[in-house]
Order: sequence, then structure tokens, then C-alpha cells
Amino acid sequence: MPAEKQKPSRFVNRQFVNRMEPPLILDVPLSTCEVTQWQDGKQVKTQDYLAEETPVALIYNGISHAVMLATAQDLEDFALGFSLSEGIVQSANEFYGVDARVQGNGIELRCDIASERFMQLKERRRTLAGKTGCGLCGAESLEQVMHYPEPLATDVRFAAASIGRGLASIQSWQAMQKQTGATHASAFVLADGTVSIVREDVGRHNALDKLIGALQKMRMQQGLQFGDGFIITTSRASFEMVQKTATAGVAMLVAVSAPTALAVRVAEQCGLALVGFARENRFVVYSHSERILN
Amino acid sequence: MPAEKQKPSRFVNRQFVNRMEPPLILDVPLSTCEVTQWQDGKQVKTQDYLAEETPVALIYNGISHAVMLATAQDLEDFALGFSLSEGIVQSANEFYGVDARVQGNGIELRCDIASERFMQLKERRRTLAGKTGCGLCGAESLEQVMHYPEPLATDVRFAAASIGRGLASIQSWQAMQKQTGATHASAFVLADGTVSIVREDVGRHNALDKLIGALQKMRMQQGLQFGDGFIITTSRASFEMVQKTATAGVAMLVAVSAPTALAVRVAEQCGLALVGFARENRFVVYSHSERILN
Repeated sequence: MPAEKQKPSRFVNRQFVNRMEPPLILDVPLSTCEVTQWQDGKQVKTQDYLAEETPVALIYNGISHAVMLATAQDLEDFALGFSLSEGIVQSANEFYGVDARVQGNGIELRCDIASERFMQLKERRRTLAGKTGCGLCGAESLEQVMHYPEPLATDVRFAAASIGRGLASIQSWQAMQKQTGATHASAFVLADGTVSIVREDVGRHNALDKLIGALQKMRMQQGLQFGDGFIITTSRASFEMVQKTATAGVAMLVAVSAPTALAVRVAEQCGLALVGFARENRFVVYSHSERILN
Repeated sequence: MPAEKQKPSRFVNRQFVNRMEPPLILDVPLSTCEVTQWQDGKQVKTQDYLAEETPVALIYNGISHAVMLATAQDLEDFALGFSLSEGIVQSANEFYGVDARVQGNGIELRCDIASERFMQLKERRRTLAGKTGCGLCGAESLEQVMHYPEPLATDVRFAAASIGRGLASIQSWQAMQKQTGATHASAFVLADGTVSIVREDVGRHNALDKLIGALQKMRMQQGLQFGDGFIITTSRASFEMVQKTATAGVAMLVAVSAPTALAVRVAEQCGLALVGFARENRFVVYSHSERILN
């Protein structure tokens, strides 16, 4: 896909073409690489743009909580969004700030949260200490994995045409994806189909957490109401994507690819309209189709 | 995408069309759902097939280690492959067996491993207890995340045409994907391009772990050598996909989508040929192109 990509951005780390470095490049979202393109038996040497994956540690009030492989971009949004999605804080007011720094093998996001929430987090971890383990973030056993979102307290509806409009314009926002072909995007789209914010990441869950963090900032700074719009993800819609969207108070999730059955059941239960296989002129509605008007 | 899908399989859980159940359906890989298809402003009610996501807990010698959301299919392969990929056991001989059972909110995979490995696992967890956290499986802090694979001790090479041949036939193996459009596949392909084993899962890492578990069984039962072939994944190639492939001793990973920069650097260092954007007649080689012959 290199031929279809745009020119290198200011983010490109030119040192990467020297293969002698240690494997971690921490604070850039993409790099360049020499590659061999094969087509119909012919080989061409060229240069390609690749998305970086950076280990990002989330640290709360000095205690390490989780490590994610993420794109080193919009990490403050990521820290806030992750903290809200995971229920570590209940509202953005309890998230006092974050300091991002390159440290050893990755980037540390040192988050400062309300001491009451930190006590809850410590207690949650302490009671799990005997069980060890992880897998889903902070979830060590089956009982901890499935926290279902609260029912959405909104009767907001959206025009079907707005879904198409949002999808038509999201690509022009995906700068990383254009260069690398390796990143997912989450977009917040206003009711009239106008794309408002887009965040990208090598991980679809991370992209959504970044978007949710950015939305929260806009809510606080500009009075944006989440009921004003819906979210598009360029990925599939799994349980966790529905969980994050509904927890943020957004009533519709539009996925370019397929949903899972569990995502549909959870969406059904919490009042979220879940749309899959979305293209500009067609899509499939899996739950709460009454939220979509012709 | 429903129109393109096949007939329901014997796995289809017909109860799912009744939306009154609790959200977890545990022991089937896919379900049916009533959906609304929109196209150019027209709506049609129809039925769709959805991939299930099941919380699967990995338990070693009675101690819970990790919970993954996975497809409830080939879970014995998954248990063995995950244990090898994560370095919980060093060889299949140390993995004595696994018992899968539906339990409460998910499926428990009760694994029986060599007591020496269990002691190491307990020690690894104990030293991390003060740090809490998770994110990547069993990885609580930045230092724990990046374990690089050993260099591959093989000079195996593959014909470029075998990549195309493997890609051409993998789709016919993807039964879940045909029905749901929601699952990834990992395939082991012999040097002549013949697809040997395919495993599917809603998670690309899980699909690869299932394949690695299945390969290990074949190695023990039929004397299959991993150097005999390569792996195709229908997904992107991230760091963890390269790590798992190289740890299994397989010298080439072919991804249908993009690699990340970190995946390329790790592949470069350990001797793995990493191929991305692979189609039947074209692909891009990101590392060790000398392993691919015209």
C-alpha cells in the first residue's frame, strides 16, 4: 500500500532507516522503513511509513495500574478517556491532571486522581491480589470482567443520512491511517453528520478512549453535550467498544465492520443503537433501530 | 453483509432471537440476531449471524491468571498456545492438560502445568503484587511488557508463489468469518502453499494462540516441523503477533493488513520474514526479504 500513501509528516523519525538501534522508539507515532514490494514476481525497493506501537503505562497517584501498546499521540486524552471508561474515575472532575514522560521502555502517564477514587482503586486491587492475573485491563477473574453500562437516559434520535455524511468525511481526518494503513480511528459526529473530533491509534480501544477523553475536555470547556452526536469507529464493534461508548453517555455507535453478539446484547440492554457494516449508502442496525430516522 | 453469508450452522443458538435472556451466552461460537438493513433510504428486516465473545479465564494449577474475550471454539488449542506464547510453559511437555468448563460468567480453562513452571509463575506474580495493574497479559509494568523472542535458528526460505497460494485458499477455511464477518483467522501454510491448519477467533491474538496450540499438538502427534511452513494472519501484524510467531519457531509471518514499526524491528532482530498487505499477486516485505525466493 505504500504507493497510495501521502508524503511523510513532520513526525517521521528518519533515524529508523538505520536498523542498528534498539527496537523501542518511544515518542513518535510513526516511522519510515525500507521495504521490498513484490508484484507479479517483480521486486521493487521502496520506503514505507509504519505506525509505531509504544508501551504506555497508566500510573495513578504513583501506583502502576496497566500497560497498553498505543500510538504516542493524544496521550492526555487517552489517560482521561481510559480512566473514565474503566470506571477509575466517575467524572472528569475527579481527574486532576496527567504528566506524560518517556521512561525506560515506554511512556509513563502519571495521573493525579481524587484520593477517594484512588482508595477505591487500591481496595479493588488489594482484594484481587491473591488471584493474580490480568487480561482485560484490571480484570483478574471472570467476575471482574463484565461490568455492564447503566441504561442511557436519553431519547435522542439521528437521521440515517447523518451516518452516511459522517462516514464520507471521516477518511479525510485519518492522517495516520493514510500514511500507514495500520491505525483505527474513532470519530464524534454531530447530529447533522458533521465530524467534530477524530482520534487515531494502532488499537481500536485506545482510539475510542482517546476520543472519549477529548470529548470530556470539550464538554467541560465548550459545553458540548454528548447527546448531540454519535460515535463512528473504523473497526468492529465488540463488547468493550459498546461498554465504553455507553459509559460515556453516547447513544449510538456506528462501526464500519461487524459487531459481536455480546456487543449487540449489551447495546440492546442499555439503550444504545448499534450499527454495523456501515457505508455511505447502507448499514445494518443491530439494536434500538428506533433511534434512527429516515 | 448478511446477504453474502452462508446458512446457519449447527452452532446457531436460536434462543438468542428472544431478547429477554441475560447477556452472556457462553458455550457457542455464534448466534443469530434480528437486524434492520438500510440501503439508500429503504429498510428491510432480516436475520444476521453474529460471532459470540465469551470471557475465558485461564487458570493454572488452580490459580486464576488471565481473562480473555474469545470465541468458544478450539479452546484446548488456545490454552496450550497461550501458555507457550506467554512463556508460562517452555514446551508442550510441561503442559499436562486442560479442562474447559462453563462457570458463572464465562468459561474456565483449568490448565495443569509442570510444578516447576507453576512455581515460576507464582514467583513472577508475587514480585509484581505490590505494583498491581495489568494491560497486556500478565504484564503490570513497562519492564514486564517487552520480552523479545530468541533469534530463529533456521535458514528456511519460501517461494513467493506459496504466499499467493496460501492466501487464495485460506478463505474457504474461514467458516466463522463467512457467517459473521467478525472473526480473524491464523493459518499454518506448508512450504508449497498448501494450507494445513486454520483457527478463527474474534481476537487476532487468540486466533494465533489457537493455531500455535494446534501446531504443537501436530508436532507431537505427527512429527510436523514448524520450519516446514509459515503463518498467515488475516489481520495486521503488531508486535505481539511477531512475538508469538517467532516464539513458536516459525520463520515467516504473512499479514493481510499493515505491520507496525515495532513489529518490523522485532522481526528484523529475531530473523523473521515479515510480510504485509498480502494479496494473491502482491505483497510488501518488511524484514528478512532474503527468506523469500522468486
